[in-house]
Amino acid sequence: MKPRAMISNRKPKDECGVFGILGHPEASILTTLGLHALQHRGQEACGIVSHDSRGFHMERHPGLVGDNFGKSTSTDSVASRLPGTNAIGHVRYATSGGSSPRNIQPLFAELASGGVALAHNGNLTNARLLRRELVENGAIFQSTMDTEVILHLVARSQKPKFIDRLIEALSQIEGGFALVVLTDNKLIGARDALGLRPLILGSLDGAPILVSETCALDIMQAQFVREIAPGEIIIITPQGIESLMPFAPRPQRLCLFEYVYFARPDSVISGRSVYDVRLRMGRQLALEQPAEADVIVPVPDSGVPAALGFAEQSRVPFQLGIIRNHYVGRTFIQPTQASRQLGVRLKHSANTDVIRNKRVVLVDDSVVRGNTSKKIVQMVREAGAKEIHLRSASPPIRHPDFYGIDMPSEAELMAARLSIAEMARELEVDSLGFLSLDGLYAALGVTDRNADDPQFADHCFSGRYPTVLTDLRSQTDSVPRQMSLLHESLHR
Amino acid sequence: MKPRAMISNRKPKDECGVFGILGHPEASILTTLGLHALQHRGQEACGIVSHDSRGFHMERHPGLVGDNFGKSTSTDSVASRLPGTNAIGHVRYATSGGSSPRNIQPLFAELASGGVALAHNGNLTNARLLRRELVENGAIFQSTMDTEVILHLVARSQKPKFIDRLIEALSQIEGGFALVVLTDNKLIGARDALGLRPLILGSLDGAPILVSETCALDIMQAQFVREIAPGEIIIITPQGIESLMPFAPRPQRLCLFEYVYFARPDSVISGRSVYDVRLRMGRQLALEQPAEADVIVPVPDSGVPAALGFAEQSRVPFQLGIIRNHYVGRTFIQPTQASRQLGVRLKHSANTDVIRNKRVVLVDDSVVRGNTSKKIVQMVREAGAKEIHLRSASPPIRHPDFYGIDMPSEAELMAARLSIAEMARELEVDSLGFLSLDGLYAALGVTDRNADDPQFADHCFSGRYPTVLTDLRSQTDSVPRQMSLLHESLHR
Amino acid sequence: MKPRAMISNRKPKDECGVFGILGHPEASILTTLGLHALQHRGQEACGIVSHDSRGFHMERHPGLVGDNFGKSTSTDSVASRLPGTNAIGHVRYATSGGSSPRNIQPLFAELASGGVALAHNGNLTNARLLRRELVENGAIFQSTMDTEVILHLVARSQKPKFIDRLIEALSQIEGGFALVVLTDNKLIGARDALGLRPLILGSLDGAPILVSETCALDIMQAQFVREIAPGEIIIITPQGIESLMPFAPRPQRLCLFEYVYFARPDSVISGRSVYDVRLRMGRQLALEQPAEADVIVPVPDSGVPAALGFAEQSRVPFQLGIIRNHYVGRTFIQPTQASRQLGVRLKHSANTDVIRNKRVVLVDDSVVRGNTSKKIVQMVREAGAKEIHLRSASPPIRHPDFYGIDMPSEAELMAARLSIAEMARELEVDSLGFLSLDGLYAALGVTDRNADDPQFADHCFSGRYPTVLTDLRSQTDSVPRQMSLLHESLHR
Amino acid sequence: MKPRAMISNRKPKDECGVFGILGHPEASILTTLGLHALQHRGQEACGIVSHDSRGFHMERHPGLVGDNFGKSTSTDSVASRLPGTNAIGHVRYATSGGSSPRNIQPLFAELASGGVALAHNGNLTNARLLRRELVENGAIFQSTMDTEVILHLVARSQKPKFIDRLIEALSQIEGGFALVVLTDNKLIGARDALGLRPLILGSLDGAPILVSETCALDIMQAQFVREIAPGEIIIITPQGIESLMPFAPRPQRLCLFEYVYFARPDSVISGRSVYDVRLRMGRQLALEQPAEADVIVPVPDSGVPAALGFAEQSRVPFQLGIIRNHYVGRTFIQPTQASRQLGVRLKHSANTDVIRNKRVVLVDDSVVRGNTSKKIVQMVREAGAKEIHLRSASPPIRHPDFYGIDMPSEAELMAARLSIAEMARELEVDSLGFLSLDGLYAALGVTDRNADDPQFADHCFSGRYPTVLTDLRSQTDSVPRQMSLLHESLHR
Repeated sequence: MKPRAMISNRKPKDECGVFGILGHPEASILTTLGLHALQHRGQEACGIVSHDSRGFHMERHPGLVGDNFGKSTSTDSVASRLPGTNAIGHVRYATSGGSSPRNIQPLFAELASGGVALAHNGNLTNARLLRRELVENGAIFQSTMDTEVILHLVARSQKPKFIDRLIEALSQIEGGFALVVLTDNKLIGARDALGLRPLILGSLDGAPILVSETCALDIMQAQFVREIAPGEIIIITPQGIESLMPFAPRPQRLCLFEYVYFARPDSVISGRSVYDVRLRMGRQLALEQPAEADVIVPVPDSGVPAALGFAEQSRVPFQLGIIRNHYVGRTFIQPTQASRQLGVRLKHSANTDVIRNKRVVLVDDSVVRGNTSKKIVQMVREAGAKEIHLRSASPPIRHPDFYGIDMPSEAELMAARLSIAEMARELEVDSLGFLSLDGLYAALGVTDRNADDPQFADHCFSGRYPTVLTDLRSQTDSVPRQMSLLHESLHR
Repeated sequence: MKPRAMISNRKPKDECGVFGILGHPEASILTTLGLHALQHRGQEACGIVSHDSRGFHMERHPGLVGDNFGKSTSTDSVASRLPGTNAIGHVRYATSGGSSPRNIQPLFAELASGGVALAHNGNLTNARLLRRELVENGAIFQSTMDTEVILHLVARSQKPKFIDRLIEALSQIEGGFALVVLTDNKLIGARDALGLRPLILGSLDGAPILVSETCALDIMQAQFVREIAPGEIIIITPQGIESLMPFAPRPQRLCLFEYVYFARPDSVISGRSVYDVRLRMGRQLALEQPAEADVIVPVPDSGVPAALGFAEQSRVPFQLGIIRNHYVGRTFIQPTQASRQLGVRLKHSANTDVIRNKRVVLVDDSVVRGNTSKKIVQMVREAGAKEIHLRSASPPIRHPDFYGIDMPSEAELMAARLSIAEMARELEVDSLGFLSLDGLYAALGVTDRNADDPQFADHCFSGRYPTVLTDLRSQTDSVPRQMSLLHESLHR
Repeated sequence: MKPRAMISNRKPKDECGVFGILGHPEASILTTLGLHALQHRGQEACGIVSHDSRGFHMERHPGLVGDNFGKSTSTDSVASRLPGTNAIGHVRYATSGGSSPRNIQPLFAELASGGVALAHNGNLTNARLLRRELVENGAIFQSTMDTEVILHLVARSQKPKFIDRLIEALSQIEGGFALVVLTDNKLIGARDALGLRPLILGSLDGAPILVSETCALDIMQAQFVREIAPGEIIIITPQGIESLMPFAPRPQRLCLFEYVYFARPDSVISGRSVYDVRLRMGRQLALEQPAEADVIVPVPDSGVPAALGFAEQSRVPFQLGIIRNHYVGRTFIQPTQASRQLGVRLKHSANTDVIRNKRVVLVDDSVVRGNTSKKIVQMVREAGAKEIHLRSASPPIRHPDFYGIDMPSEAELMAARLSIAEMARELEVDSLGFLSLDGLYAALGVTDRNADDPQFADHCFSGRYPTVLTDLRSQTDSVPRQMSLLHESLHR
Repeated sequence: MKPRAMISNRKPKDECGVFGILGHPEASILTTLGLHALQHRGQEACGIVSHDSRGFHMERHPGLVGDNFGKSTSTDSVASRLPGTNAIGHVRYATSGGSSPRNIQPLFAELASGGVALAHNGNLTNARLLRRELVENGAIFQSTMDTEVILHLVARSQKPKFIDRLIEALSQIEGGFALVVLTDNKLIGARDALGLRPLILGSLDGAPILVSETCALDIMQAQFVREIAPGEIIIITPQGIESLMPFAPRPQRLCLFEYVYFARPDSVISGRSVYDVRLRMGRQLALEQPAEADVIVPVPDSGVPAALGFAEQSRVPFQLGIIRNHYVGRTFIQPTQASRQLGVRLKHSANTDVIRNKRVVLVDDSVVRGNTSKKIVQMVREAGAKEIHLRSASPPIRHPDFYGIDMPSEAELMAARLSIAEMARELEVDSLGFLSLDGLYAALGVTDRNADDPQFADHCFSGRYPTVLTDLRSQTDSVPRQMSLLHESLHR
């Protein structure tokens, strides 16, 4: 599900991380740890559903994993609140304002076949159309999430076996998804046919694990087994693991933003260390967009690896010229009129000693709207920088995403509105440079991008979308309004 | 929906009160007031849904109306949180322990025809069977409430008009219900064909009101218009009020417990003042079950009117021999082992001066399990009563209810287990007397109870149930387990 | 300490109830029960301090006893949170708006002699003067309560023994007080020389108890031993009970409002049943102020006993013509402009059936400002009463109290402003009658009030204050402002 | 005040940051911003006291500044809750478990001279002795904080002017302190005679500011004016700034830990950039303790600048071999038995790609207990490091601090127990090296440490305490127990 864009956020946002485990006596505790390691993929809300002989057990909360599941005492623990050897969990990105508790995952439904819980990373591009059809046929939705469409399609399937109902449901949806599903005796994983969103199989003490990123295996010292293939459905039971490929195979197109921004640097995706890819992006950027400078300064924290690569390649010292305040929670709201210009300083401050009278290369992972970049440039300028050369470790973002990234509309994307020269003027930098799309592929070890059928989902840079966008084409009709009838208040 | 019985409660419990209003600028404020006046019908939870041009607005909370909707400041008011000129609301009886927020009403669904909110007083006797059929056909339930069945039946109806869908849904359900329904342009009321649960039409400043009891009209100085007829569906729009009688007419059988215990004494039901009926019950009881005594003492608060009637008839002084502590909230849990015997004294205390060395007639409205009666008798005995004559202003309760009263199973009903003489021994009273069923009818002004087709729903006393009990007959199959798959925790 | 008057409250308010117990294994549980029974004496806040071998344990909360101390689970109980065999507790009356947590009792201080906790019912009439002197000598106050003055006087006393320090402190204060004090090995009770505020000695399982009213003994089936004498200090240790009378004896002058309004009807004060006194007041009122009427209606709940006495004497039927809504908590704030006139109906409603076309005698315990009386009269009038005869079971209140009753200033007292005829006109009643002061004494069994030295503290009716009012006389100087320097917010 | 040591924390902890401003229309907002910038100095609790014509306004909360003061809406803002042009604030370090609300600063007292609020960074070394004397003379303490001693000394001073009372109070205390004090017309700053704790004068729009670190000036773009001198008292009124030096001058001895760990890298202390000092420490460390290695890895975040310096000097690449999870809040409690060994991984994870098969130099700012170092070494080892060379950018810590740092007792300090060779064995590193004390001085630009009278407070490394430790010498007597009489519970 795609929450509305946040004016105040500089980065595109991933929406979710998922985790599932089957057959481990500490299933809910390990799910807590796994979600904690995936916290960077979503800080709005988190939920866990476990299953034991008594049935399913669910807890869903706004806020962070540690705050909601991290406390354990002898009399109140995740283990006792969410018992059982099987569990799935979900973290979700923070939208502005209060988000409805109706929209926290995992979703749960009691079907004729029994209970089923479902957690989803990604975004469906024909969910609104499907939802309208389902509602016209009597379906009652609990949430406004696209994910719920999958549940209703499963519920209405006439197939006798649950797995066939799920396959029938998935065959109707379009878009990007990595799903984990928990029934009373199975853990199921599914990945969209293009592999837009990642999903990984791991193992701990013999218990299979499904997870969005390898860092969630590392935190519990679990083994990486393999990535789930695009279009694969994996069915895990106490008896073993079965893999289905029910859909026509298509070449993988992993979302490039996992490398550019989303994934944790210590994760490994498709065999590539994310940290190493970012170092290479920095080195490549230094080759493509060099600058005469005294110091290389990363925009923390995501710009650090690329800045290290840039510094290494350019042989200019790397320094922490911007300090991040780690205590900026989600609750710090701009205090007032007179202090409005403070803006970015609640989160970052210039390290004047490193910057004053220097020619500074500022390295960031990307430029989206440009608002925050502009404020950071201004802050660095006021700290006394002689020259500011802004470098983006990814190409200009000119097209929105529809597969699970919370990104502004095209009209708000700075690189969609302006030429690079115009951007440099608006950002008030002495020079501005972006990594080329070929350079980004080079950093990934792919030397010849296939323009007709790119090896990665690079639509935000290239405009080549990997699927049709059903809902987008029908946006003029009445479907969207369907979902906004209710304004539920959590007033206290 | 019928929450599980509470061991510690002495009274049968009604489950709900409903309120609805259309076309008043202070709709949500008046709904708050109305629910407050109906608070005696349910203290577990409360909810309001309003509608304005932007859509529906919902708030549902555990706890009392005043605590959740009663506060209003210039910056935060029910009026601003729940805007619009149309609103419905619901209060619900307290089950033991934490009740799931999933089960607070009004229910809301976005149907193809638009949004619909629904509040229900009563209990359906074939909800489990219907639910199973619906789930087998792909319906996904949000709650475990029988009420939700109605929503799904409406959603799946193929009729083109909403009102016809609702009629089709209601034609499939059995049991007792008083419903208020809010769509984007209508307020609808519906009452079961037997009129088991009350529903009343009122009016304030020209705005029609639907409400469970007249006391909720009095609080806002609204006018009583008429009772909704058994089997009637009333459709209120800005253009006027339409009444439908889509079902075959049947003679009314109002639940006797409304007079005996549920309704507030200042309410008027079917033209009878509840207070006056209770006075008459007391007088009749004094005629049927006299006792030589020095003082008539009510078990507060519900026994007071009958005790006044008993005292008047028997010409023995009425005195407050038992004082009620008004500050016993729902949260006072028995503190500990050693003080367990204190029990009832948290709520009541003996007024020794009135009781010592006296022959006491204790008047209560009913005897259900007998636990609390026994403790009160013991307390009065220890305060020095010379004799205790317990009188119940209703007949022995020997059969459970299935139409919206939370009552213990037959095995727990004292009068189902024991003869009156045995009850007297177990309660340790010097004498025990019950109002006769004919006497109860007499107090209501009905001199000849029709044994074949009683004028009231008197099944708890007589065993004559007014409808078939579909779910009860099929209780051995797997239906009930369907609803208990999920254990949702609200851990903080 | 005397919180500011509340515009919206019709009754004078007592400020506190106190409880203490020494040498019982369930000390904090019994204190919880005792405070619960004293809840009518104060609903704003409650606190308990216990003592065991590890030291003192304190919990103080806004709100009701049951809500804060009434819950007990295996893992979290009052017994474990407040361990030890000795404990004291306090309930405090609700001021309007949020009250500062600084002002919840018991107070605690670590003196050179060890820890001491103190709970106080009453009001000191020279506290401001003493406070100013203490502050000028370097004392730092934690609260704005007059009670804290006592602590500082004890702390600064040069006497070697704690009890002598306490006596020295008490010899300096003026006004009404009933104190319970807990040190690490003693429970001490003290009552002011006039006995304005009540204090009682009881016993449970051999453990001595100090308590404001006998009803708090009854709830735990403890024995009444005796009242603490005016001016007495009682020192309870595991070794036994010692009584000191360090101050010059003076004849007792118990506050009449304990009988008129404060005390629970089942309490016994100075050998008189409060319920019986109120019955007698009603009978005497019927003799003094008869009325031709069809029905006697009490203003619930405090008017009920007097109304029963009135009905008995006048041989006119007693009926519940006004129904009280028990679910009005402290949080129900007047919802809005349009519904402002609803006012009293949130709490009371007219029982029309009893009132319509009747000549009604309304019996209340007192008339203070007259605001609520006026609204109730209006409500009864609108319910169709033919005539309304308002009767007050106490004399006109013409003078404020300064000894622990929260009462409006003289300017706000209706009977201080208007003649009885004028009051009748303003209240819009057909007749208005008050019990005479002699009649009130008669109801108490005292036939000859001593006008020079009245047997009770009757200053609110007579203007004869039993003590000098030191602070009042010096109110023009700067003392009061001393206490209002800090505005502490509990913002969340 | 010195909270008890936390077993689970690897770093010495500073206790506080202070902020004060006089004469600015947005005083409380700027105090909020300043405290936010000082958040690294204390995360347990925060408080602000402002003053306007109505008096003082106080809010004190457990938790972070942003969570408690960072939200502002049109109807609820810090500006309206804490009005006035003058304000002071405080942040306080987190102790384990729930800390008492009694111990949150600023402290406030109503003295005879008027109200006074006080915020304190540091620790008094004779507070217990003074407290005992004060209590014996009748003082009643509100808290267990040493800071409160100052308030009582001021309250009891016989000097006529407030400033002379403050000077008299300060002349009696020993230890380290940076104080800000707010009266109804003055903002006062004071620094201990040795200048152990920092205090800085700044200015914004003409309004003087007192603050612990320059980074709190930068956040609001305020100007740095000068450091308050050791022993200086600065009195700020609307009329101007006055400086007093009432105590005998002594050479400054700033606490070295401000440079090593406490201060934010972008702060400037005594004219030195903290970031630059740490870079130099790293370079010096590389000179003193070189290692043959493939990669320099910082222990994030505090080890980063020293690691950059080490990498620069040693010409070995700097890489982020350990990734920090930013979402570890204070609430993540070790989940369970089986996962106990996960420990440090909740907060850090190894970036395997950077570490595997490498000779790694791990650079940390210090080694205190060694527990966390050991876990990090183990994690790096398991990630495949071939060799691990641990380097500490500060000398071995062999002696506890008593001036405001929360540090373990000598018995728990690893370097006090073991030789460096033994430490290396216990930490299981291939080599272990510490910066020398002379090297640390060199990084600060001081080439000749004066062993008799060191230029900095280096007692944790050298054992040379700058003051007598009065309370420590008298620790065997009964003073400490005085403060632990009360166990206050915040149970909800």
